[in-house]
Amino acid sequence: MNLNQAVDILREYSEAAHAYEHAMGVLSLDGDTAAPSASYKGRGQTMAYLSGVSYQLLVNDRIRDCLETLLASGDRVSPAVRRQAELLKEDYDRLTRIPLAEYTAYQALLTDAGAVWHEAKQKSDYPMFAPYLARLIDTERRFAAYRDDTMPAYDVLLDTYEKGASTATLDPFFATLRRELTPVILAVKDCPAPRTDFLHGDFPIQQQRVFSDRLMAMMGIDRARCGIAETEHPFTTNFNKWDVRITTHYQQDDVASSMYSVIHEGGHALYELGTGDDIQFTALATGATMGLHESQSRFYENLIGRSLPFCRAVLPVMAELFPRQMAGVTPEALYAAVNKAEPSLIRTEAAELTYATHVMIRYEMEKLMMAGDVKVDELPALWNQMYKEYLGVDVPDDRRGILQDSHWSGGSFGYFPSYALGSAYGVQMLAAMEKDVEVWPAVERSDLTPITAWLGDRLHRYGRLLTPERLLRNTMGADFDPLCYTAYLRKKFSALYRL
Amino acid sequence: MNLNQAVDILREYSEAAHAYEHAMGVLSLDGDTAAPSASYKGRGQTMAYLSGVSYQLLVNDRIRDCLETLLASGDRVSPAVRRQAELLKEDYDRLTRIPLAEYTAYQALLTDAGAVWHEAKQKSDYPMFAPYLARLIDTERRFAAYRDDTMPAYDVLLDTYEKGASTATLDPFFATLRRELTPVILAVKDCPAPRTDFLHGDFPIQQQRVFSDRLMAMMGIDRARCGIAETEHPFTTNFNKWDVRITTHYQQDDVASSMYSVIHEGGHALYELGTGDDIQFTALATGATMGLHESQSRFYENLIGRSLPFCRAVLPVMAELFPRQMAGVTPEALYAAVNKAEPSLIRTEAAELTYATHVMIRYEMEKLMMAGDVKVDELPALWNQMYKEYLGVDVPDDRRGILQDSHWSGGSFGYFPSYALGSAYGVQMLAAMEKDVEVWPAVERSDLTPITAWLGDRLHRYGRLLTPERLLRNTMGADFDPLCYTAYLRKKFSALYRL
Repeated sequence: MNLNQAVDILREYSEAAHAYEHAMGVLSLDGDTAAPSASYKGRGQTMAYLSGVSYQLLVNDRIRDCLETLLASGDRVSPAVRRQAELLKEDYDRLTRIPLAEYTAYQALLTDAGAVWHEAKQKSDYPMFAPYLARLIDTERRFAAYRDDTMPAYDVLLDTYEKGASTATLDPFFATLRRELTPVILAVKDCPAPRTDFLHGDFPIQQQRVFSDRLMAMMGIDRARCGIAETEHPFTTNFNKWDVRITTHYQQDDVASSMYSVIHEGGHALYELGTGDDIQFTALATGATMGLHESQSRFYENLIGRSLPFCRAVLPVMAELFPRQMAGVTPEALYAAVNKAEPSLIRTEAAELTYATHVMIRYEMEKLMMAGDVKVDELPALWNQMYKEYLGVDVPDDRRGILQDSHWSGGSFGYFPSYALGSAYGVQMLAAMEKDVEVWPAVERSDLTPITAWLGDRLHRYGRLLTPERLLRNTMGADFDPLCYTAYLRKKFSALYRL
Repeated sequence: MNLNQAVDILREYSEAAHAYEHAMGVLSLDGDTAAPSASYKGRGQTMAYLSGVSYQLLVNDRIRDCLETLLASGDRVSPAVRRQAELLKEDYDRLTRIPLAEYTAYQALLTDAGAVWHEAKQKSDYPMFAPYLARLIDTERRFAAYRDDTMPAYDVLLDTYEKGASTATLDPFFATLRRELTPVILAVKDCPAPRTDFLHGDFPIQQQRVFSDRLMAMMGIDRARCGIAETEHPFTTNFNKWDVRITTHYQQDDVASSMYSVIHEGGHALYELGTGDDIQFTALATGATMGLHESQSRFYENLIGRSLPFCRAVLPVMAELFPRQMAGVTPEALYAAVNKAEPSLIRTEAAELTYATHVMIRYEMEKLMMAGDVKVDELPALWNQMYKEYLGVDVPDDRRGILQDSHWSGGSFGYFPSYALGSAYGVQMLAAMEKDVEVWPAVERSDLTPITAWLGDRLHRYGRLLTPERLLRNTMGADFDPLCYTAYLRKKFSALYRL
């Protein structure tokens, strides 16, 4: 195969792969936001079929030859083509090691598990979900071993979501967080809680929908290219830079829940909306790693969205949409309320201070699951025990405990640590950004465009063109140091709680 | 190829075809209901790719041999397999007779024509659309000749949408409607209009959404298998019997608009929801013809939904949800209002009495277009002349005249008659049903299940397994007679308007 042929094959493949990913992505989005409940059967069948075709598109000798030709061509191919070949070769290697029948069976299992988890969570019925979880763990362990049986299964999975991550790097990372943050968490526990009652009035969902639109406008999100839908567990999905969707979940008695969910998912959306025109419809047109993605979502959610300047900017909007509920609330009171740091049950609603501890609990559980060191029946008790031990809270039911997250039902084991890593990356990005951009005056005047432009220039536009290491250097301008993250949290919450 | 191989290939093909249709259907539904506006670029690319693959799945020698083997196997294959082979052979022949280059050029023309029509309709600028219409007519005539050059083009097209339909059957059908209904229509025009002001108050869309749920519940629609979304031009789409979607469009100042749209689309949905388990994921698992589909939607919309017993059943629901707007309205007043029969300009909003006349005008125009007997420049004047003659209304502009429907810009010539045929079929189905079922007491107590069960048993469950003729016999129990339809309309509207 000559180089021109290889480049043509890559282009054809990219077009086809985008079509299948797009179709499966919309099927999945629709399933989570709009489809009737019994539709999962037919969708499972379709997803299994399409993922089988998608697998075969990549896993064949023609693509193998194409990738080998491209990878052997040095500077004769563009950096974009070489990077695509590198990334596809990783996918190729990962997939070829999984037998097709097992791969498609797993896709069908995921669809079933998702539907069962939804119902089990609603009913707080862990035993209903347990057999699916057992099969998911079993399959993930088997797949990890197919890919690399020289490493522990969990390290194989961690590396998938966060290139280079392993228990060897994450154990000390989480140990640092525990050491630095635990004293603050415990001190905060003894402080009087801020007023939050005004966030828990009656917030009609119709009006919250309008608020979501206003928040997306404040973030500078192009609505011609980004939709919003409603689902149980919010997520963002993207098909190309002209079609990104965020989702949220409204609670009539809690305006902050959807508010910060929209800002979080909006951060993911801005990353995808900012990928370069030149890389669309290729394997490069998406966020580089899960940690980098979470660095963006949690950047907007916490570093910006839970700052005092943002509270000053958003309060007039809230007062306009919810005049009765927000009467007499000051920016300082809103700032204190949205930073209430008392340990709680739900990760997605956790305070910035305690968030990484929620992640750490999942990390510890995943380590045990993937090592085969725990039975699925024992998991809820283990979960509840760790919540008591690390956060001092009693878990009243599995709905608010082990069933709260969709990740495991979706086959995402090893993803959680990316949330904590991303949170930590964001703090170092902000420090670098503050040298170039007048961040806080911009936030206070509701103009996040210079912030997004700075991130767009150093991160978003590249998609996966540059390596994660390079992108982290671009944005942090220094080596990763978890002490920056813990110092930021200690300072913010010491001031808020006058420690 | 032996019979077992052929049966296996048919099964494989059906599974694959369902997956592609499902994916394209959800992409299209999402595009119409939820996707951001700029997403059309990526979706167009994906749809083009998937429809190309879908075409190649059917149009190849292996499928041709498979179908020929099955069709030559007589009683050695089950009726379901034989029927699938017959239907797929029709699709195969239709597709293979059109040269691929012309087929893809036509797809591009349709995309352009759709966009131009949208703009032309908005600007009421027929000359802008005319050259596209000319090319569409020309291509449709040429394609019809490819398929069967022994028949007039329009007969070929009519047969596509309604197996067995032709100008030989439709000319006398529409002549009967014209003769029987035109005097009534013109007489109603001179009568005082009923009160309809209470349908045009302020109906908050959030509350109308609740009303839709209540209507779907009244119809006995299984919400675990049927969703509802919002769009500009309502439609129903189905992927399998576990996943059917209706759509509606809310108008804040017109509660009846979405109400009857929901009941209409709900009728389509009940047909699809009722297809048999045994035919799912095959070519048989959908409504048999467009006319039979419209017979169901218009049955629920008009014969049931616009009856006095239904008005008695639905009024308490409306009074509960819209107490201020519906204060003092009697069932009889509601019945008169939803049957207001003044001739109007827009087909989709036409009264039951005048609906078939709107269709007839399009039928007469399509006959001329497909015979090559008219220039596109002459069409608007012809349209306006017929609206004056048959409905007594003056068409003020082409937006509300010849540009109102999307069918021609979408290449659907020969579809319109199905609407009128379906309306007429329904009347004979009701007559047959009334011999077996206590229809009106059931409607009055908001229980449509015996009605749907009767239709399900004779029609819905078969999908396309039986021929349309057989299904019509099953449900009408007599030969088709348009005089049943006209007699029903004359009686209903003579009583309503005291003619």
